[in-house]
Amino acid sequence: MNDRATDSPPGRLASWEKRTEFPLFMAALLFLAGYAVRVLASPGTEPWRGVALALVCVTWLLFLVDYAARLRLSGLGLRFVHAHWLDTVVLVLPLLRPLRVVRIYNAVRYRRDQPRLDLYARVMAYAGLSSLLIGFAGALAVYQQEHGAAGATIRTFGDAAWWVCATLTTVGYGDVSPVTPGGRAVAVLLMVCGLALLGAVTGSFSSWLLQVFSREDDKRPPERG
Amino acid sequence: MNDRATDSPPGRLASWEKRTEFPLFMAALLFLAGYAVRVLASPGTEPWRGVALALVCVTWLLFLVDYAARLRLSGLGLRFVHAHWLDTVVLVLPLLRPLRVVRIYNAVRYRRDQPRLDLYARVMAYAGLSSLLIGFAGALAVYQQEHGAAGATIRTFGDAAWWVCATLTTVGYGDVSPVTPGGRAVAVLLMVCGLALLGAVTGSFSSWLLQVFSREDDKRPPERG
Amino acid sequence: MNDRATDSPPGRLASWEKRTEFPLFMAALLFLAGYAVRVLASPGTEPWRGVALALVCVTWLLFLVDYAARLRLSGLGLRFVHAHWLDTVVLVLPLLRPLRVVRIYNAVRYRRDQPRLDLYARVMAYAGLSSLLIGFAGALAVYQQEHGAAGATIRTFGDAAWWVCATLTTVGYGDVSPVTPGGRAVAVLLMVCGLALLGAVTGSFSSWLLQVFSREDDKRPPERG
Amino acid sequence: MNDRATDSPPGRLASWEKRTEFPLFMAALLFLAGYAVRVLASPGTEPWRGVALALVCVTWLLFLVDYAARLRLSGLGLRFVHAHWLDTVVLVLPLLRPLRVVRIYNAVRYRRDQPRLDLYARVMAYAGLSSLLIGFAGALAVYQQEHGAAGATIRTFGDAAWWVCATLTTVGYGDVSPVTPGGRAVAVLLMVCGLALLGAVTGSFSSWLLQVFSREDDKRPPERG
Repeated sequence: MNDRATDSPPGRLASWEKRTEFPLFMAALLFLAGYAVRVLASPGTEPWRGVALALVCVTWLLFLVDYAARLRLSGLGLRFVHAHWLDTVVLVLPLLRPLRVVRIYNAVRYRRDQPRLDLYARVMAYAGLSSLLIGFAGALAVYQQEHGAAGATIRTFGDAAWWVCATLTTVGYGDVSPVTPGGRAVAVLLMVCGLALLGAVTGSFSSWLLQVFSREDDKRPPERG
Repeated sequence: MNDRATDSPPGRLASWEKRTEFPLFMAALLFLAGYAVRVLASPGTEPWRGVALALVCVTWLLFLVDYAARLRLSGLGLRFVHAHWLDTVVLVLPLLRPLRVVRIYNAVRYRRDQPRLDLYARVMAYAGLSSLLIGFAGALAVYQQEHGAAGATIRTFGDAAWWVCATLTTVGYGDVSPVTPGGRAVAVLLMVCGLALLGAVTGSFSSWLLQVFSREDDKRPPERG
Repeated sequence: MNDRATDSPPGRLASWEKRTEFPLFMAALLFLAGYAVRVLASPGTEPWRGVALALVCVTWLLFLVDYAARLRLSGLGLRFVHAHWLDTVVLVLPLLRPLRVVRIYNAVRYRRDQPRLDLYARVMAYAGLSSLLIGFAGALAVYQQEHGAAGATIRTFGDAAWWVCATLTTVGYGDVSPVTPGGRAVAVLLMVCGLALLGAVTGSFSSWLLQVFSREDDKRPPERG
Repeated sequence: MNDRATDSPPGRLASWEKRTEFPLFMAALLFLAGYAVRVLASPGTEPWRGVALALVCVTWLLFLVDYAARLRLSGLGLRFVHAHWLDTVVLVLPLLRPLRVVRIYNAVRYRRDQPRLDLYARVMAYAGLSSLLIGFAGALAVYQQEHGAAGATIRTFGDAAWWVCATLTTVGYGDVSPVTPGGRAVAVLLMVCGLALLGAVTGSFSSWLLQVFSREDDKRPPERG
């Protein structure tokens, strides 16, 4: 009888998600690596560019299979598309997959049997890690859009990385900036994601600092009174 | 006797506001659409530019009628102008009407009998939606002021939209920026509104993330102890 | 006996501060107006420039007299300089006087017998008002430093005001920016003051919005349950 | 028996840290001063540049000795490197040493027997002081990387200081910005550190302002009721 509860749609969905968590994280890293090689390799280095393209396609297919499996297991039909809209967006734009890194991160920490980090530290680690991955994906995408455009100021991957840092921190020097519609669309996506994530880092750091200082007060004996 | 209470000024004002909420929201969207067509259509496309102008004038008249009706129903006389200063400002500058979107948004959600969103999610949705509408209105206004000016860097609507994104997120590359006094006045308005609204998005996201992480802690059983 | 308590140094200091609060606020506005006329008037308009200079000197003298009186009344001797370091800074740089606007603002509101504003609204009003005054003073000071310099991009007071808005909101386009050491020193002061004050506005607005949304939840009856 | 507790690794480590706190802070200041002279002195002024280089090397050696002593006293072996990763980073990049300023600051205040500052004020003071030191170190490092590069816009130490202020406050005009890979690497480090620290200053100031305003409410008697 208990087994049926585990076999009900939500139970089987949860079990599927638990088992695919780590492989999908690895697939996301491979996707990013393949995309990076595809974008950064010069046209002459043919065997590697082909391998990279294959890697991108295969991992994307994996994401598609996972999405279809979860859609079926959930028993929701097409309402799944709306209820899990973030997953749907991430399926269409796999470069945004870092946004889902949080559950993996927790899983990894559990596996290693380490003590869990403090709440603020975990939020900082999660948001910082996501920022890093999103920033890397954004630099690749902007570089791909821009490096051949007329009048572009982002001409090397180094320029793109420098531009991403200035954008995510909202400094925005403007010494290099995208000029093509495609590059600017990536930039807007990056600004919105990055703003929220770095706001979370900053806010948590501020709260954490306040906590450290006020905890220090409690530990000390009252001053000679 | 109870009916008199409903007929008292505040009661009738509330009932008026409830019934005009949705039509006014629609009128605001039409106003924005008419303004957009008027600004973006090239001078040759005459029938549409005339329709757009008529649309702008008619919807503005509707706002005026609503304001007059509420002023009268409130029974406050001219003190209404001061007590509802945000409405007064929005009447004079209808492009700021998105700032009043919150009540509509709630009304819409109720009508559809959906469960209410989480508090942080609603604040994010409200502030994000307002930012979007204000940003669109700001891009139109800046484009109108700038695209014909001498030495302007904002020459297409795409430039204006790109500039609005860089401004609302406070990145501010400066590759394109307004040069006319009118364009700069719109920019300052946009900075102030956008800064507050996006600050709300960022702050809520940060709080929401902290909540998600700390709720996860509660759900888990204590670790093998 | 009770009278002696009022005549003790702290009591007399408080009474002095209460009586000079409003006159000093007026003097600060006159100082700002005199400084503005002095900076903005063209060299030919001689009678007014002289009047403005006199106004600046007289009001500065008033600040000096007030500082000396409070130093004496406090009974602290030279320790007063350290204990009230903000007052000391404001005496030397009277353009920063807006930072002390808070107590005046409260006093003004009391005098008019209006209900006190909500806590967040007051913080927003105080920080917003201070930003406005500091921004005006900063625009004047930067204009004075820059408008005659070689290679300056800030050439009119309008440029200076536009630059101040872009700086206080941390957008920072960089289309105009100070080039002289004096102008840059003013800019750094403005960044630090403005950053903190606008951070307070943003933070309060975010908290206020959350409060509005959560209060709305409480007012509604639970949904048909 | 009690003595053995004090002689246990953690006890001896704490005692070592307590005794070396102040000397190490002084060594950090000397390191910064030596580095500043080394970077800013023109090549001709030979005796001083040699002294500065010696100062830098000697203080670095002191940091190394302290790190080794703490590693041994902790009794952790190589796990110390991981557990105290911030100390490890600071050992390799001594310009980041200001990040450890907090404990010194508290120690200094105790020594002078002054009352402890309010919690928010202390966070502001700590984060502000760290920002100042990190900003100074960053200006030196960027100046060293940039001032001789082709096409550099940061040519004097004044330019570097101006650029650091615009970066730490996230204003980012972009009138001057690093162009070499080394300078940009320093810039990214500075953005991340500075963003978090200044976020802490802003957040604490905002909380402090709210506290001041709400405390004022409590002090006043209820209004004629």
